[in-house]
Amino acid sequence: MSSFQFTLLATDGGARRGELRTPHGVIQTPAFMPVGTRGAVKAITHRDLIDLDAQIILGNTYHLYLKPGDDLIARMGGLHAFIGWNRPILTDSGGYQVFSLASMRKIREDGAEFRSHLDGSLHLLTPEKATDIQARLGSDIAMVLDECVASTSEKEPVREAMLRSARWAARARARWCQLRDHGDPAVRVTNPGQAQFGIIQGGVHPDLRTESVQRTTEIGFEAYAIGGLSVGEPPEVTYEVVGHTAPQLPEDRPRYLMGAGMPDDLFECVARGIDMFDCVLPTRNARNGQLLTSTGPLVIKNARYAEDPLPPDPGCGCYTCRHFSRAYLRHLYIAGEMTGATLATIHNLYFYLDTMRRIREAIVFGSFERLRQEFHQTFSRRPQQ
Amino acid sequence: MSSFQFTLLATDGGARRGELRTPHGVIQTPAFMPVGTRGAVKAITHRDLIDLDAQIILGNTYHLYLKPGDDLIARMGGLHAFIGWNRPILTDSGGYQVFSLASMRKIREDGAEFRSHLDGSLHLLTPEKATDIQARLGSDIAMVLDECVASTSEKEPVREAMLRSARWAARARARWCQLRDHGDPAVRVTNPGQAQFGIIQGGVHPDLRTESVQRTTEIGFEAYAIGGLSVGEPPEVTYEVVGHTAPQLPEDRPRYLMGAGMPDDLFECVARGIDMFDCVLPTRNARNGQLLTSTGPLVIKNARYAEDPLPPDPGCGCYTCRHFSRAYLRHLYIAGEMTGATLATIHNLYFYLDTMRRIREAIVFGSFERLRQEFHQTFSRRPQQ
Repeated sequence: MSSFQFTLLATDGGARRGELRTPHGVIQTPAFMPVGTRGAVKAITHRDLIDLDAQIILGNTYHLYLKPGDDLIARMGGLHAFIGWNRPILTDSGGYQVFSLASMRKIREDGAEFRSHLDGSLHLLTPEKATDIQARLGSDIAMVLDECVASTSEKEPVREAMLRSARWAARARARWCQLRDHGDPAVRVTNPGQAQFGIIQGGVHPDLRTESVQRTTEIGFEAYAIGGLSVGEPPEVTYEVVGHTAPQLPEDRPRYLMGAGMPDDLFECVARGIDMFDCVLPTRNARNGQLLTSTGPLVIKNARYAEDPLPPDPGCGCYTCRHFSRAYLRHLYIAGEMTGATLATIHNLYFYLDTMRRIREAIVFGSFERLRQEFHQTFSRRPQQ
Repeated sequence: MSSFQFTLLATDGGARRGELRTPHGVIQTPAFMPVGTRGAVKAITHRDLIDLDAQIILGNTYHLYLKPGDDLIARMGGLHAFIGWNRPILTDSGGYQVFSLASMRKIREDGAEFRSHLDGSLHLLTPEKATDIQARLGSDIAMVLDECVASTSEKEPVREAMLRSARWAARARARWCQLRDHGDPAVRVTNPGQAQFGIIQGGVHPDLRTESVQRTTEIGFEAYAIGGLSVGEPPEVTYEVVGHTAPQLPEDRPRYLMGAGMPDDLFECVARGIDMFDCVLPTRNARNGQLLTSTGPLVIKNARYAEDPLPPDPGCGCYTCRHFSRAYLRHLYIAGEMTGATLATIHNLYFYLDTMRRIREAIVFGSFERLRQEFHQTFSRRPQQ
């Protein structure tokens, strides 16, 4: 735990400004983590990520386990060495992907049985196995395996999943401690300084969230994430659950909201005490031709942009906005040129990462609330006319 | 013509070291031009091209004429402004693409009638129209429309195509001079300093090549290209025709070999007096997972690279080779990550452009022949075991 340390530098209302020390470097929080599913953030290079000053990226255990395999990655020295990325990495547990397989998976007490979406082969992901895989990957932050349910489920299944997640969390922690204290010849640990985060579940039910916080913090992790949100419920509900849950988590540990969200979510959840975010939205929407700007999403294929000489966001300082017009970007999308996805990804990630930089600065200066109001005055979730 | 000027700086045997002044900057020759078909070099950004120090890129008139259209590009200020590229651009005439449409085109004396590969619409590309389109695009170097035939054709059709190409060249030049001297309200000229190159045809027949040189140089162009090669004939035949044709071209003008070639072709054709090259090979092969190295092509998907920690080419100084292993690149290809194509494109273009840099340096130092021998000692066209 010595190489993992969180320091709270400042607060501004509920918003927190911190510094998270990991074996591969320091992360300034609140932070947004671009998603690099298979060891690459889609459509861009690490050089672009460094230029964007991404402090940490996320890798998906499910995908890396299936291909090229955690054993291979361990033999190559771990995920950092394998993909040539020297800054921090967080890996998820694979749980979310497995639960997304719907009919191709079955939840049992020992773990989640699933068929690979690649070749139909049968696998069992247990809390221990998810821990082992991530130990081999050697991420700086590993997540426990949890059971995700739809946020619209009846309360009882949500409660059962929350309780099972807590039991799984205890098993994951036991396995993590065992690897740390005694090792296991079957598991090549590639990052001895890896931290493990617990995950709070409980859907949209305040009492279940409170119970999950108690059960999970009792086990004791380096830090805690809030899972099972941003999965279709209205934003106000997300904010309510975050506002209820985050303050119950230990103040001296970072709080990670998994899978969120839209740009306005960042402001609302920072305001409620969240320190870390990840989301595929900026990268996925970029590939689909949706650019996120300070006034809202811009659908670049729209015919109205065919001869528009303006950059995607005239106020943006990213490489794309400094050099290219909407007309050119539209042309690249219509023509099917990969470069269009690259330029849009650079823009969208810049927008997210720059927003986080401005949030961090505002917290220090005590002007977060003003920045938040300003953002909401111009930003709309509806694509522009 | 004042903004277009070629200066021969040094020779070494048949190899020439020159400097080509264009409205958008100076090109050191011999030079390789990456192909940016639709206003983007596939899979990379202009930033990557600048980092690779690409001096000039090529745009395809056929593709840009169909989408987004030369009129739109002219309204946006020309191709440079539209795509945000401030260095020189050469555009082809569209002839090669039209002739590649096979059954979807018909050659007539007035021009080439063809159906768009996008929507089947009928178009007529005449020498005048190809000139007008390129005037709207505003490339620094425009090419005349020529008739391409298979290099394996009987001699008579090759002769007829050569003669027609010469007649078309005269018409293209007349139209170019008309636009320069009198303008035409129907054609928005976006680069008044544009040069026009004639194209030598005649297949693999020395006498036809000689006749083509006479007929084309009689018309008079800023410079001349050798067309109709690297289209399937054995390399020795290409070299023979180049060796026969290039020395007949004016010494004080750059000589451009269209569509060549493999890395060894660069050496062999520079040795025979060629100053400019373009080829889709480095970029297309990159997307197909073939990396070109100093020892030959490397098929990155090959299972033998699954755990290979070496860079694609251990002697290469490109971004990809300085940061990534064959194992990681293979993983990206197997996983279908676009970033794999980007990294391979960066490597392949670096290899071509760095080879040209070394060739330019060697010519100045009188060591071109030694460099050429060294290259052939290690390079093989066969993919590595």
